Amino acid sequence: MSPSVPSRKHLLGTDSFHTVWSRDLAPALRVAPGDTITFQTLDASYGAVARQVAAGSLDCPEALRETVLQSVYPEQPATAGVRGHPLTGPVFIEGALPGDTVQIELLGIEVAAWGWNACRPGGIGLLDDEVPEAHTQFWDLSDGHSADFLGLARIPLAPFPGIVGVAPAEAGLHRTAPPRQVGGNMDIRQLTVGSTLYLPVEVEGALLSLGDVHAAQGDGEVSSTGIETDARVTLRVQVLKDRPIRTPHLRTGPEPTDLWSAGAYMTTGHAPDLREAARTALRELVVHLQREYSLTYVQAYVLCSACADLRISQIVDAPHFTVSALFPERIFGR
Amino acid sequence: MSPSVPSRKHLLGTDSFHTVWSRDLAPALRVAPGDTITFQTLDASYGAVARQVAAGSLDCPEALRETVLQSVYPEQPATAGVRGHPLTGPVFIEGALPGDTVQIELLGIEVAAWGWNACRPGGIGLLDDEVPEAHTQFWDLSDGHSADFLGLARIPLAPFPGIVGVAPAEAGLHRTAPPRQVGGNMDIRQLTVGSTLYLPVEVEGALLSLGDVHAAQGDGEVSSTGIETDARVTLRVQVLKDRPIRTPHLRTGPEPTDLWSAGAYMTTGHAPDLREAARTALRELVVHLQREYSLTYVQAYVLCSACADLRISQIVDAPHFTVSALFPERIFGR
Repeated sequence: MSPSVPSRKHLLGTDSFHTVWSRDLAPALRVAPGDTITFQTLDASYGAVARQVAAGSLDCPEALRETVLQSVYPEQPATAGVRGHPLTGPVFIEGALPGDTVQIELLGIEVAAWGWNACRPGGIGLLDDEVPEAHTQFWDLSDGHSADFLGLARIPLAPFPGIVGVAPAEAGLHRTAPPRQVGGNMDIRQLTVGSTLYLPVEVEGALLSLGDVHAAQGDGEVSSTGIETDARVTLRVQVLKDRPIRTPHLRTGPEPTDLWSAGAYMTTGHAPDLREAARTALRELVVHLQREYSLTYVQAYVLCSACADLRISQIVDAPHFTVSALFPERIFGR
Repeated sequence: MSPSVPSRKHLLGTDSFHTVWSRDLAPALRVAPGDTITFQTLDASYGAVARQVAAGSLDCPEALRETVLQSVYPEQPATAGVRGHPLTGPVFIEGALPGDTVQIELLGIEVAAWGWNACRPGGIGLLDDEVPEAHTQFWDLSDGHSADFLGLARIPLAPFPGIVGVAPAEAGLHRTAPPRQVGGNMDIRQLTVGSTLYLPVEVEGALLSLGDVHAAQGDGEVSSTGIETDARVTLRVQVLKDRPIRTPHLRTGPEPTDLWSAGAYMTTGHAPDLREAARTALRELVVHLQREYSLTYVQAYVLCSACADLRISQIVDAPHFTVSALFPERIFGR
C-alpha cells in the first residue's frame, strides 16, 4: 500500500489575473488531483461600475456606498497588452495531459453585497440595436440570498462563474469573450454549487482559470450581463483518464432556487433563424413586462438578462424554428 | 341584469380533419366565449406506424396489438389536395375579431395506450444527416403515467398538443409544418394541462384547430418527433379585447412531472450559429448516452427527442454562442 497523500487547500488571490487565454502563461499555482482551490474573482468590468458610483453618475444605497467604493481598482490589467475579462489563474494540475478530462466540483461560491447589470445601444446584447438608451441596474445583494429589483421584486441568488476554462492547444493569445471547446466564457447558469464541470484537456497541466461570477442570470444572458459581482469560488479538481469529451459537459444538481416551481410567463418567436426567433420572443416579453409592471424598456430588458430563460422549443419544423422566452412572474409575488 | 348564459360543452370528432391552414375553411363547429371543447386528435402520421405493426415490420407488445391495429386508418385526408398534419377543427369562436386575443385554457389531455417516435437519414431532424439508419421507437404508455423505453427507463407523461393555432389572415392554403405568428406547429412542451395559451386573432371567428399530440417531448424535439399519439384534448376558450399580442404567449403551470428535480447531465456546443451549437451539444449527448447506457446511436437520438432539453445558455458572447443539451438521467434510476 502506498501512503495516502492528503489533499491540499489553496487560495488564489486577486493578484493573479490574466486577460487572455494562452498555453504560454506561467502558472500562478500548481496543484495535485484532489486538491481544493479557492479563487478570488473580480467583476467583469474590473470595477467600472464602482467608478461610476465614485464619480456620482450612478446612485447607490447609502448603506452600501463604502463597500462599493472598495471595488474601485486603480488599474485594469492587460496580459501582453490585450484586455479582457480579469481571470484568476492559471492553475497547473499535476498529471493532466492532452486527451484527459478535468473534473471540477463546485463546492462554494460567495458573492459580494452588490452587483450590476446593464445594456447600451450598439452593444452585444440581443436587442442592443433597439434599446433607446444606456442603462446600468444596481442590485443590492446584501441580504445574502436575493437581489432586489427596484423594491418591486426579488430574484433569488444562484451564483456561478460565467467563465471557467482551460488553455487551448492552439498557439498564441486568445480573447476571453468567446467560449471554446475547452470552455471559457460559457455563461452557463446551471454551474452553481453542487454541479460538476468536465473540461477536455489540451495542454499539459490543463491551465485552469475562472472569473466573471454572476449572482444570478437567465439562460441566454440577453443583455450581455448577468448580475455581475466580485466573488470567491471554491472547487475541487480531479483528472480523469478514461472519459474523453470533445466539448464541456456538466452534471448539475437540483435547481438551486424555487424560481421556476410556479411556472412561467412565456413568449414565442418563430423564424428561419434561431437568433431572429429569440429576438422576437424577447421583444415580445419586454413589451409584456413594460405593460404589466410599468417598467421602462431598459429596466425590463436588463431584468430579463438576470432571470428570463431562452429555450429552443423546436428546431425541426422548417422553415420556422421556435424559441421561447420564459419569465418567472413569481418574483413579483404573482 | 342580463341573464347569464351557461357555457356549453362540445365534442369535435375525428371526422373533422383538415390538413392545411386557411381562412377559407368552413367551420366544423361554432362556439361562444366561455365554452369548453373536446377535440379528438390522431397522431401526426395518420396511423402510418400502426400500418407498420399491421404489416409485421415493427414489433409491438402482444397486449397492445389489438389497440394498435384499431389505429390503421383507411385513407389519409388531404384538404384541397394538400397533405399535412391531420388537424381537428376549425372552430369558429363567436365575437373573435382581428386584433383580439384568444385565450385557451388546457383543461384535460388523455392519450392513447401507445405512441411512437422516429428518425431517418435525410429527414428534418437536427442530426438526420448523420444517423446511420432509420429507426422507429415504439412506446408503451399503457400504465397511464409513463412511457417505457426498452425496459431500461421510464419517461413520465406530460402530454400536450404539438399544434394549436388559428387561421392566418393571408389568403391561400398554408402548410401545417411551420409555426407562424398565429401559432400552429409550435411543439412547445410546456403547453400541458394547467397552462393557458394566448393567440392573436387575424380573421373573424379566429378558426381554431389543433392536433399532433405528444405524450412527452424535450425542448427542441430534436429527431422531429415527440412521443406521437392519438388523444383527446379539452380546453376552454375566451376572447380578450384589451390584450393585443403579436406572437403566441403562454402562462404555464408548474412542471407537470419531477423529471428535472434531480438535476441533469448537460453537454454544450459553442459556435457562431445557434443551430450548429445545438448540433454539437446534441451529438456529444448522443455519444454520452451510447457509452453510459449501451444504446445504439438511433436509440439515444430518439430518446433525446422524447426528453432532452435544448437551452440557449448565452446568445451574446460573439463570435461563439452556447447551446446546452440537458438530459434527465433520473429516468434511468440514477
